[in-house]
Amino acid sequence: MNDVADVRVAQRETDAFRAQLEAWQARMEQALAQRLPDSATVPGRLHDAMRYSVLGGGKRVRPALVFATARTLGLTEDEVEAAACAIELVHVYSLVHDDLPAMDNDDLRRGRPTCHKAYDEATAILVGDGLQPLAFELLAVDPALPASPEIRLRLIALLAEASGSLGMAGGQAIDLEVQGKRLDIAAVQDMHSRKTGALIRAAVAMAAACVPTLEPRLHAGLRSFAAAIGLAFQIQDDLLDVLGDSSTLGKATGADRERAKPTYPAVLGIPASQAQVSRLHAEALDALEPFGRRAEPLRLLANWLLSRRY
Amino acid sequence: MNDVADVRVAQRETDAFRAQLEAWQARMEQALAQRLPDSATVPGRLHDAMRYSVLGGGKRVRPALVFATARTLGLTEDEVEAAACAIELVHVYSLVHDDLPAMDNDDLRRGRPTCHKAYDEATAILVGDGLQPLAFELLAVDPALPASPEIRLRLIALLAEASGSLGMAGGQAIDLEVQGKRLDIAAVQDMHSRKTGALIRAAVAMAAACVPTLEPRLHAGLRSFAAAIGLAFQIQDDLLDVLGDSSTLGKATGADRERAKPTYPAVLGIPASQAQVSRLHAEALDALEPFGRRAEPLRLLANWLLSRRY
Repeated sequence: MNDVADVRVAQRETDAFRAQLEAWQARMEQALAQRLPDSATVPGRLHDAMRYSVLGGGKRVRPALVFATARTLGLTEDEVEAAACAIELVHVYSLVHDDLPAMDNDDLRRGRPTCHKAYDEATAILVGDGLQPLAFELLAVDPALPASPEIRLRLIALLAEASGSLGMAGGQAIDLEVQGKRLDIAAVQDMHSRKTGALIRAAVAMAAACVPTLEPRLHAGLRSFAAAIGLAFQIQDDLLDVLGDSSTLGKATGADRERAKPTYPAVLGIPASQAQVSRLHAEALDALEPFGRRAEPLRLLANWLLSRRY
Repeated sequence: MNDVADVRVAQRETDAFRAQLEAWQARMEQALAQRLPDSATVPGRLHDAMRYSVLGGGKRVRPALVFATARTLGLTEDEVEAAACAIELVHVYSLVHDDLPAMDNDDLRRGRPTCHKAYDEATAILVGDGLQPLAFELLAVDPALPASPEIRLRLIALLAEASGSLGMAGGQAIDLEVQGKRLDIAAVQDMHSRKTGALIRAAVAMAAACVPTLEPRLHAGLRSFAAAIGLAFQIQDDLLDVLGDSSTLGKATGADRERAKPTYPAVLGIPASQAQVSRLHAEALDALEPFGRRAEPLRLLANWLLSRRY
């Protein structure tokens, strides 16, 4: 195959994957809408703000990782939908809280006013506080999850660890502590590994946990894949903050520099950061080798994730 | 027995119970300290703020309810300690978030500066966000909990429901929405039932869930007890805000009136609110009838709770 044919194949793959991704996004929109509490049970303003924050957009990267891992392991989307919802609820809560004035003070998210701008700060805090227990409740009781009690507990433990003070919340704390400071690249990587990486790894690990008979060798492959993708995804995010276009991204660009955040591009420079994304991308694909053709959904997702412009 | 003897017996009981309560508080201090993540794994400021918020005081009412219910049902404190920790972590997170400037804007809690005063707002938000998943993680994996996977899931579901947008977070949303408004007593009761009642009921229900063979009649008795105590406890809290002494309470008094919160005393007046506490107290004790002498720990706890001055 010559280079031109390579590019054509890649383009066809990307187009086909985009259709798959959109199908997953549409599925998530419905799945989340069904699982949010209805307006008869939750106070009006909180109810509206929860739906405003959770529904109506988002790339749904973590659910896509759950679905692609499930497909790779021979599970259907139905079998992991509740787990995908739980992860996405935790991700959304973290965005709502990170956007608060006391944190990143962002006005724009997914092309719309952030939750505290559209409602108010107190409501935004409570949206986050209400989404967290809903996520754990889904894992504990959602009837769509055909998992044994032991597997449900494993899913809860994975999500709790990934989102807590050792994971995502801890990463956000580091992010706030280090603004304006010079960090070496290992420290930036540790911050990313918690702040974004932990939930990305949990998405893959939770789908894998639904297959209790999975060989250790394959578990290890998925873990390496998720670690590489998680870090590459965040470096790509940092790069988009420098190079991207705010109308495509749906949020302000240049925000990291404005806050003097130590990011990959800030510490290593843009070309070295781009090279690092490519290296991690290759590493992620290598880690899928033991799965052969079955890992196609994860391979396509990785290709899309790391070439995205938003 | 004459009245003087009655008073003496009540006093002896109260003294004995105070010693029990202090023993439970000491146990909780240690149990929580052991379960908070250590400083090697959590960023320094977040780690310190988590320990500052969780340790060093608090009445530990919800853990006491867990322990007293456990004793009533023939369980030991050891068997429910992890569940008591999970509930207390959720309670503490709710205090830290409720104290934030965007919420109740309180400077003093348990006689010390509130978390956002001692640290900063962002850290206080993250303390809450880190304590929530830790609570669910304990219920999922804590080895001290000698519960089957099914019971663990039931505990997680109970805590999630009690703390989420239908329960505690929803109650706080109502509280914020209704400030300055006139409510009827049913609406005040609905707010209290979610904001404070839900977690109080969960404390009793979670201990009861550890005994899967418990008769429905006894389950119902505990539910009635918890519902009555939960509401009475909150009315007592409202009364203490009007009548109490800020140095005893460890927080500012008169705060409800300042924020024009519709409370029981504001809607019904002080004497009618006091009468309501007495009525609910009697109702709670009646609900314990089917347990006979075994319910002594719950009876003493109820007596202490509703006569407290802080």
